[in-house]
Amino acid sequence: MSIITLTTDFGTKDHFVGAVKGTIYSELPDAKIVDISHHISPFNITETAYILRNAYKSFPEGSIHIIGVDSELNAEIKHIALKLDNHYFICPDNGVISLLASEIKPEKIVEINIHDYIETSFPVLDVFVKVACHIARGGTLEIIGKIIPEFKKMIELHPTIGTGNNSISGNIIYVDNYGNSISNISKKLFQEVGKGREFEVIANKYTFSKIYTKYCDIVDFTLPKEQRQKDGSKLAIFNSADYLEIAMYRSNLNTVGGAWSLLGLNYRDIITVKFK
Amino acid sequence: MSIITLTTDFGTKDHFVGAVKGTIYSELPDAKIVDISHHISPFNITETAYILRNAYKSFPEGSIHIIGVDSELNAEIKHIALKLDNHYFICPDNGVISLLASEIKPEKIVEINIHDYIETSFPVLDVFVKVACHIARGGTLEIIGKIIPEFKKMIELHPTIGTGNNSISGNIIYVDNYGNSISNISKKLFQEVGKGREFEVIANKYTFSKIYTKYCDIVDFTLPKEQRQKDGSKLAIFNSADYLEIAMYRSNLNTVGGAWSLLGLNYRDIITVKFK
Amino acid sequence: MSIITLTTDFGTKDHFVGAVKGTIYSELPDAKIVDISHHISPFNITETAYILRNAYKSFPEGSIHIIGVDSELNAEIKHIALKLDNHYFICPDNGVISLLASEIKPEKIVEINIHDYIETSFPVLDVFVKVACHIARGGTLEIIGKIIPEFKKMIELHPTIGTGNNSISGNIIYVDNYGNSISNISKKLFQEVGKGREFEVIANKYTFSKIYTKYCDIVDFTLPKEQRQKDGSKLAIFNSADYLEIAMYRSNLNTVGGAWSLLGLNYRDIITVKFK
Repeated sequence: MSIITLTTDFGTKDHFVGAVKGTIYSELPDAKIVDISHHISPFNITETAYILRNAYKSFPEGSIHIIGVDSELNAEIKHIALKLDNHYFICPDNGVISLLASEIKPEKIVEINIHDYIETSFPVLDVFVKVACHIARGGTLEIIGKIIPEFKKMIELHPTIGTGNNSISGNIIYVDNYGNSISNISKKLFQEVGKGREFEVIANKYTFSKIYTKYCDIVDFTLPKEQRQKDGSKLAIFNSADYLEIAMYRSNLNTVGGAWSLLGLNYRDIITVKFK
Repeated sequence: MSIITLTTDFGTKDHFVGAVKGTIYSELPDAKIVDISHHISPFNITETAYILRNAYKSFPEGSIHIIGVDSELNAEIKHIALKLDNHYFICPDNGVISLLASEIKPEKIVEINIHDYIETSFPVLDVFVKVACHIARGGTLEIIGKIIPEFKKMIELHPTIGTGNNSISGNIIYVDNYGNSISNISKKLFQEVGKGREFEVIANKYTFSKIYTKYCDIVDFTLPKEQRQKDGSKLAIFNSADYLEIAMYRSNLNTVGGAWSLLGLNYRDIITVKFK
Repeated sequence: MSIITLTTDFGTKDHFVGAVKGTIYSELPDAKIVDISHHISPFNITETAYILRNAYKSFPEGSIHIIGVDSELNAEIKHIALKLDNHYFICPDNGVISLLASEIKPEKIVEINIHDYIETSFPVLDVFVKVACHIARGGTLEIIGKIIPEFKKMIELHPTIGTGNNSISGNIIYVDNYGNSISNISKKLFQEVGKGREFEVIANKYTFSKIYTKYCDIVDFTLPKEQRQKDGSKLAIFNSADYLEIAMYRSNLNTVGGAWSLLGLNYRDIITVKFK
């Protein structure tokens, strides 16, 4: 039995998530449903892509991922289902897949066409769940849609490389639970462009000459305890998803704040790496 | 094995939900537990009823729904278990069921009487879970309670119909994750009273002459993109639960606000439909 | 198949929890994963201990509890796995276990040493999950670590007893979902020291001469309804976890506030019981 995951902007207070799960269990009593996130900022597909990109690969191949963000069908945004990287995705064709996996060629994409006999204002429940259960039972994509050659591309918020390969300019694409500001500059891109040169990371009015790989590497543990208080210190790090992140060591968003609030590094803000 | 759902005001930070699930798994290792919501406003049974009413029907018949909101036993509020619409509910007898399913006659109601040998300040864990596991194992209601003829009625916050069937006056009963304000005026009531007449919806100082069935229907997709910016426009809609809702198109409660905050349409506020 | 529980400060928006669950299901398709809490205040091990202490005992013996709070490996904080009270815990050796179960002797403790071949900045996913799956498959602790005699002790925030056994002085260690302020003074300690004497509870500038066992016991149900409004009244109670708590009857943290905000009883604040 396949796993069905849910990534939505429904929140967890309303009845939406419960209704979706009840409908899945009604169709597939043995389904294994996993919440990835229901706290995506409303309609934000950049956040959706960041979160799902860093979660879906942990699941077994053949898992089915429902994306319930900005999913209302309209004259321009269709619903699609696709097989990509040996996982299935069911989502609106609004560009989210291009942000999630731009470098991987999908094996098959269909435009879902079971709407003809479904009138709905809650497509995740009435359409996406039906498609997910169909796939989980071993059904093919062609049964629930017609093959299309590609999904919609969204090109905003991709990092750009400066003249002479001397810089990378990216954006903050996500602020995490600790208030850390995460950019779209990957370790891979950094290494490809930088080729081991020295560098400076510039974010707002702050500069960093080192990028850590563990948060606690900013602490010198050879010093006596009272001389090494680093809580609240800012640092640049390649985070566990291998993206360049500006963090505050052991900070607390609910009390003192995080990199986001203290350094003023919000969604879409620019972050630059200058190579020497 | 039956599904056991949880609808509570416990929040998800404290140990309460974890302890309840651990207790269920200790009694029934194969139980399937589904969270409907743990973010009900403390002690708010109107919210509880709205959320559970719109979620429970999606679950398979025979599912068991635990309601952990305002559930402390006292001299006036007893604990009940009932079978209604082929689902089981375990809850305090505080009126919540009358808000949830006033139009459906319960098949059987019992006042739970296993308290005689249970001393507890956490009845959801010590009483409701025991009753749920008993039912899940196929036990009858008579074993854990004594039959009573009816549950407590709560009459507040029901819509009223004006003289000559010329209006319906209701209240905002829920504000959802998108900040949309949802009334207790159902599509069914609207159609029964209105009989196809023209109408005006009045909420605070705003009026609406149309009720949509999809949010994006307010957008004219024949216009060029730059002329059709409707984000943040207000609209009246019958939502996916078929209740009259005042919404802001693609609004974000965390940034600009929602219908709730921008139009001043809060819990208990009045909303009126005038027929012509 | 063992249950694996998760107690973290990851929040539920980011990809962390989804990635951890996906990894567990990839290794153990039949795993039963239960969220205890993902909303621990960042890096707060006192909160972690309070929540997990009150939840883990509800789970069946043999359950495996992953603690993902402040879990980065560094020169001074190692990762440990232990069997205690017939449950397994996998966590950083930062004192959290001493707050969680100071009075129970662990059966076996190992310092996890599978890091030698794992380079990671996300140890919960890369290390703790591996250890949990190993234990769930029936593996022994010795395979994934080397036996150590004890875990780190944390001595702060334990209640102290005054001269002549005439008082107990404790601290607020947790504020719950209702805004109630919970101390580290247990009913057991209160009874052992007090031996039935009269007493006064002093918290900030407020005193209480009675400790209730049910919230609604402050209401006199023999009075007519309009004379017994107690909503918002303050009281001292032994809560369902048997700790002395200062509460506001049926209060709402989101509107009027709770004991925490209204009485000024925050994390680490002092609460004293004076016996006569």
